[in-house]
Amino acid sequence: MEQPDVDQLRFAQGILASQPFSELIGARITEFGSGRATLEVPIRDDLRQQFGFVHGGVWAYAADNAITFAAGSVLGPKVLTAGVAIDYLRPAREGVLTVTAQVVHSSHRVAVCRADLSVVGDSRLCAVAHGRVQTADPDRRDEPPAAVLVDPGSGTSS
Amino acid sequence: MEQPDVDQLRFAQGILASQPFSELIGARITEFGSGRATLEVPIRDDLRQQFGFVHGGVWAYAADNAITFAAGSVLGPKVLTAGVAIDYLRPAREGVLTVTAQVVHSSHRVAVCRADLSVVGDSRLCAVAHGRVQTADPDRRDEPPAAVLVDPGSGTSS
Amino acid sequence: MEQPDVDQLRFAQGILASQPFSELIGARITEFGSGRATLEVPIRDDLRQQFGFVHGGVWAYAADNAITFAAGSVLGPKVLTAGVAIDYLRPAREGVLTVTAQVVHSSHRVAVCRADLSVVGDSRLCAVAHGRVQTADPDRRDEPPAAVLVDPGSGTSS
Amino acid sequence: MEQPDVDQLRFAQGILASQPFSELIGARITEFGSGRATLEVPIRDDLRQQFGFVHGGVWAYAADNAITFAAGSVLGPKVLTAGVAIDYLRPAREGVLTVTAQVVHSSHRVAVCRADLSVVGDSRLCAVAHGRVQTADPDRRDEPPAAVLVDPGSGTSS
Repeated sequence: MEQPDVDQLRFAQGILASQPFSELIGARITEFGSGRATLEVPIRDDLRQQFGFVHGGVWAYAADNAITFAAGSVLGPKVLTAGVAIDYLRPAREGVLTVTAQVVHSSHRVAVCRADLSVVGDSRLCAVAHGRVQTADPDRRDEPPAAVLVDPGSGTSS
Repeated sequence: MEQPDVDQLRFAQGILASQPFSELIGARITEFGSGRATLEVPIRDDLRQQFGFVHGGVWAYAADNAITFAAGSVLGPKVLTAGVAIDYLRPAREGVLTVTAQVVHSSHRVAVCRADLSVVGDSRLCAVAHGRVQTADPDRRDEPPAAVLVDPGSGTSS
Repeated sequence: MEQPDVDQLRFAQGILASQPFSELIGARITEFGSGRATLEVPIRDDLRQQFGFVHGGVWAYAADNAITFAAGSVLGPKVLTAGVAIDYLRPAREGVLTVTAQVVHSSHRVAVCRADLSVVGDSRLCAVAHGRVQTADPDRRDEPPAAVLVDPGSGTSS
Repeated sequence: MEQPDVDQLRFAQGILASQPFSELIGARITEFGSGRATLEVPIRDDLRQQFGFVHGGVWAYAADNAITFAAGSVLGPKVLTAGVAIDYLRPAREGVLTVTAQVVHSSHRVAVCRADLSVVGDSRLCAVAHGRVQTADPDRRDEPPAAVLVDPGSGTSS
């Protein structure tokens, strides 16, 4: 991925736009490249739980997706997320959720990422997450990827 | 929570129906009580990632919510989910997602749950998860609950 | 690994005996095969924290090792543990720690395991854990295994 | 904990010295205070697995203990570790293990920490970990602490 960051971001925005669930959530990607990715989710009423806080599942989606994108920026186009763990720290009610994921270790096959989740304009963390992402392996027919960034032609992803 | 299971399930269905995000996802609860909860999510096109598999974030939502409900069935009405971890095992493309969460340990303040995620009619696991849930503590004003099952009047949750 | 279970257990006992740290802890393996492994650790004074409870690190060691053995029983001789998570539920002061790990999913490359930790003769859980184990990949020179069951001749492990 | 850092470190060293398991491992604490703690473990032959790498259980012990100390530096004397997760990135064979844990969020009751594990003099991470630590609650007789930093007189810890 030798393109300048602006092209990388446009590339990532195209992938996000091709994820129907990310469209349903209303997520946008504002940073992508060099082992980092930032996703934002404007809070809407239909993202809440019964008392007006953003549902934990929205945070979990955002952490999962930001971690997958951050890893994809170093592992290349075909990756699958092996697992994600999230610790909830404080709820959010209004504003724009933001999650920045950062690769803390990567090889040519695996990346481990951490993510910080908060609300734009508020430095207090709402959650922290970490996850492990691997390159998709075409010969592992028993393990099609849980999340694949690109290459619709891949035998594992389509 | 002394009511018979049918009342417990109706009670839980009412809570789920009051979660706008669960309505957006289209989740339903089919089992609730005695430390167990089962949620189902019929797969729809807008729950997919770019290659037609269910987005990992949908699985993460389902795990988080099932774990919170299972814990709530033993901890009582006011709980908050401290953290959830999910391992993705295989993707799903069609059918109805089902996640059953089971309390494996609980005290009067904390419950730890495991969850198995699969597709209805297919015994193969798509993911496994576990999570820790605590009772919400009204005097912890610095920690409003990330998820609260009931009691809209609670100072911590509204 | 076609041998009868008794041979499998003897095989696993030989591997455990070749782990100096397991010898230091005083661990023994009492079950191995078909995706399951049970380790026991008799509580000794030098395994405690400052108030006489078994140190969390002893539980974490036992979970890590039992999970690696359980996975090795299905993945074959060369495996590495990618990650382990443990939830502490109640401390232990006397007796024999026991941890049983069970593979809940495996492919030819990856196994995900759960482990239950308790004290022999007491049905109450002291901790639960889960972990992901992969086959060691000789061509991944940047990732020698964190734990390898056998094959000292492997380029990745020696 | 208003004392200067030097007193805080001496205080922490005294606690570590009172943990028989930490003595068995040969751990030392070199930083303590303001939400951070650093532990070191000189690699010895009896800390290895069968191929000469440090056993994953040693890393897990170090992560668990560093996280508990880091949290204790902000939560005060009586804490219990609820859970720890570790991702193994690369093994170590020689030198001194070092783990630095940092509180990323704390309230008056809970602290969430991240830890970086490596070998002294080598900037490459060998593992990353995170954990949740709570204040011990004397009235929770059903939940004596899994790890308590001080106060041997506490009803929950002795």
